[in-house]
Amino acid sequence: MPTIQKILIANRGEIALRIMRTAREMGIKTVAIYSEADRNALHVRYADEAVCVGPAPSSESYLKTDVIIDVCKRLNVDAIHPGYGFLSENAGFARSVREAGLIFIGPSPESIEVMGSKLAAKAAVAQYNIPMVPGTPSAITDRTEAKAISATIGYPILIKASAGGGGKGMRVVESEGDFDEQMDRAVSEAISAFGDGSVFIEKYVTSPRHVEIQVLGDQHGNIIHLFERECSVQRRHQKVVEEAPSAILTPEIREAMGRAAVDVARACGYYGAGTVEFIVNDALDFYFLEMNTRLQVEHPVTEQITGVDLVKQMIYIAEGKPITIRQEDLQIKGHAVEVRVYAEDPANNFLPDVGTLDTYIRPQGNGVRVDDGFEQGMAIPIYYDPMIAKLITYGDTREEAIQKMIRAIDEYQISGVQTTLPFCRFVMKHDAFRSGQFDTGFVSKYFTPDKLTPAPDATESTLAAVLAAWLMENSKPKSTGTVVATASRSKWKANRLA
Amino acid sequence: MPTIQKILIANRGEIALRIMRTAREMGIKTVAIYSEADRNALHVRYADEAVCVGPAPSSESYLKTDVIIDVCKRLNVDAIHPGYGFLSENAGFARSVREAGLIFIGPSPESIEVMGSKLAAKAAVAQYNIPMVPGTPSAITDRTEAKAISATIGYPILIKASAGGGGKGMRVVESEGDFDEQMDRAVSEAISAFGDGSVFIEKYVTSPRHVEIQVLGDQHGNIIHLFERECSVQRRHQKVVEEAPSAILTPEIREAMGRAAVDVARACGYYGAGTVEFIVNDALDFYFLEMNTRLQVEHPVTEQITGVDLVKQMIYIAEGKPITIRQEDLQIKGHAVEVRVYAEDPANNFLPDVGTLDTYIRPQGNGVRVDDGFEQGMAIPIYYDPMIAKLITYGDTREEAIQKMIRAIDEYQISGVQTTLPFCRFVMKHDAFRSGQFDTGFVSKYFTPDKLTPAPDATESTLAAVLAAWLMENSKPKSTGTVVATASRSKWKANRLA
Repeated sequence: MPTIQKILIANRGEIALRIMRTAREMGIKTVAIYSEADRNALHVRYADEAVCVGPAPSSESYLKTDVIIDVCKRLNVDAIHPGYGFLSENAGFARSVREAGLIFIGPSPESIEVMGSKLAAKAAVAQYNIPMVPGTPSAITDRTEAKAISATIGYPILIKASAGGGGKGMRVVESEGDFDEQMDRAVSEAISAFGDGSVFIEKYVTSPRHVEIQVLGDQHGNIIHLFERECSVQRRHQKVVEEAPSAILTPEIREAMGRAAVDVARACGYYGAGTVEFIVNDALDFYFLEMNTRLQVEHPVTEQITGVDLVKQMIYIAEGKPITIRQEDLQIKGHAVEVRVYAEDPANNFLPDVGTLDTYIRPQGNGVRVDDGFEQGMAIPIYYDPMIAKLITYGDTREEAIQKMIRAIDEYQISGVQTTLPFCRFVMKHDAFRSGQFDTGFVSKYFTPDKLTPAPDATESTLAAVLAAWLMENSKPKSTGTVVATASRSKWKANRLA
Repeated sequence: MPTIQKILIANRGEIALRIMRTAREMGIKTVAIYSEADRNALHVRYADEAVCVGPAPSSESYLKTDVIIDVCKRLNVDAIHPGYGFLSENAGFARSVREAGLIFIGPSPESIEVMGSKLAAKAAVAQYNIPMVPGTPSAITDRTEAKAISATIGYPILIKASAGGGGKGMRVVESEGDFDEQMDRAVSEAISAFGDGSVFIEKYVTSPRHVEIQVLGDQHGNIIHLFERECSVQRRHQKVVEEAPSAILTPEIREAMGRAAVDVARACGYYGAGTVEFIVNDALDFYFLEMNTRLQVEHPVTEQITGVDLVKQMIYIAEGKPITIRQEDLQIKGHAVEVRVYAEDPANNFLPDVGTLDTYIRPQGNGVRVDDGFEQGMAIPIYYDPMIAKLITYGDTREEAIQKMIRAIDEYQISGVQTTLPFCRFVMKHDAFRSGQFDTGFVSKYFTPDKLTPAPDATESTLAAVLAAWLMENSKPKSTGTVVATASRSKWKANRLA
């Protein structure tokens, strides 16, 4: 059983730092790789060793399999953690790592391959009784047959790219009259995005919720689940607010979904940390969607409610150790919410807004966790995903976690770029979110830019704030016992030292 | 049942901020008071309103009962939270607050009075079967009688000031021959420190551990306990490392101590948050020491292992609400450790080392909480306790919490003043602490300044670090696929942006 001494993190930003922190706690040395654009990034400074692997575009640096493996050999690295994105779900990379005699901290290339294809995944889990959205069992070639199946399933239906993700190559067809047009678009999008025009057809679930189950499997066949994450609040088909547990699952459905997720993992001989995604409808029927064979962005909410360090478990599993956590000992403790702080302008259709973090002060205190990769004065590179940070809060109850989130959002000070924080404040204060009655249509249903409210202090008049600050700075107490100056809270943001 | 709308925090620094954060989460407005020396302090900026109450010395500002109550009236404040220290255990202040028609967020003046006198406290709990260190039942007047009692108890004995605290007026007497000399010193110290020369005699417990129980009582007679905190690592008789739960208590002793603590609270009709302190010997016999009638500095470790926000509970209780947490539902989840980061020089007998925080960058990540009141560039005022921050880590197990603490200490960047961080690193790595086999003699038994080790990166040669940093900054990749520069981790501290 190998004991890992040194890990290369084939990633950047917050997830690289997050992995390095756990490695340091375990006494494992860390190696960062970085592109020329990331020369001054925090993950480079945090690592024990750091190596530049090429120019800014990911294809020239973070995706260079050969270079990364070469660095491992030169620096006596034992294992590679891929983080999320980049090479994390690339079976070829996992195979190259294994063939180079290194440990890939993740599942086998075979598991990645099976779950990387929606149709192969469906076939693999067929032996288990996993609920699936009614649809075509294989990629569509015959359009007439596809139309017949759609009529049987009943409209609305969904056309999805077989190799898809992130909403690309995905089309809703409301009625048979629209079928041909939407089919043409889906195929053309799929070819341009994935180089593969095969699509399949599914019943379109109205008011769907995105609920996913975290699983952990070891190399000895033990698989457990760590409950669900609810990720229904999305913009541009991408998650922006997540929480654990879901506000609406019953204990019975939670258990059934957990069992189904473990079966999905078992179906592909899964080991490592993985996530089984489901959609859940109004009636709390759930359907298997896909499995992500890596650590998720939103994994911290699971860590907060279970106390399990998922990266630590991934490393143990990669070392060949059996999982020592027993399913029956796991329980949900409290509630956690995560919001993703992107450099995007929610008032302008969430367009990325790169720039420099002129002010960057994190919230603090009881029940607040910030996972980020930036500091004040740093620029957000244009080459990568514009996520600045993940802000996670947790409390004894869902309401407490939400109250802490609003407090933390108000306390977060970022200037120089627009961020999703005002949008996240809107979500936290919205009745639909508070009540738990929302689905993936939350943004299109409820959000318009005029709904954004500024941080509470900015609602006070600037004049009053300036006057109060002036008074506070310039008045000397006339005599002890006299109230001298009362300043409004806007000074928190106006005056705070950088 | 009043619902509090606006709270004045009669305190400063980290505890003022910590209370304000919970108040904001509850939708309650906050008023800060500050001395002239604290004009730029964070608690002033964080509050909704802030009032200067006088010059720097506490007696001229933070201890001015009349001024504070006057501020409350002018700003329509409903309630005062005293924090810890300052007026928090001053029965006269609590009474004045009540008489002014305001709510004191804490116990009744009567409870404070009873527990403020060690002898009155002993008398109050006499009806319960609380284990107490053998000793005199009342203040000593007759020295001959005192000697006779000491002989019966058996040396070593302890002479303690009746009004004492913080080790003042406390003397260990090893044998009868030393009695008179130590008695003279104890009385003289007690008079000069507390204006009250009354002392009492106790059996001196060798290898004592300091273990305290957190209690919560409401105004309807419900009292619960939230398990223990172990605070045996002390320097100058003051706590510097705390943890929850204790590494050595058995579930049976934990339950017995919890029951005893609830009885102590019941004996004085206690409501609010309070702490019942015990000493525990090698054999795990425990003895009641005293009750602190306020929030403790180290309360966060209890919050982390129970999920209960103690400040929120204090506010609910002050509003007259019944406690809704049931004792049988409470359980310990994981393990938490706190170290106090003081501006003190551990290499120089922990002498305060005031100055300016030239660098001040907090550790982050999973399982790390920092409660502080400073930012980079701020000066540590000479007038107050030199605590910069409380660093709290928590994990699934004690070992995990300690590993996270070492990682967090290494990540904490403070320059401009000496701090207790290197000492805390020493504690975390010491076998006695790791094994749980330690007592209040930890520092005198194990610590000498030569045991301090620098942060891991500083052990690498400066030349290597400079060279690596230079290479990293100046080299362009010769060609993709070439390892260009390997930099040691010292750059984390050397180069990180401020």
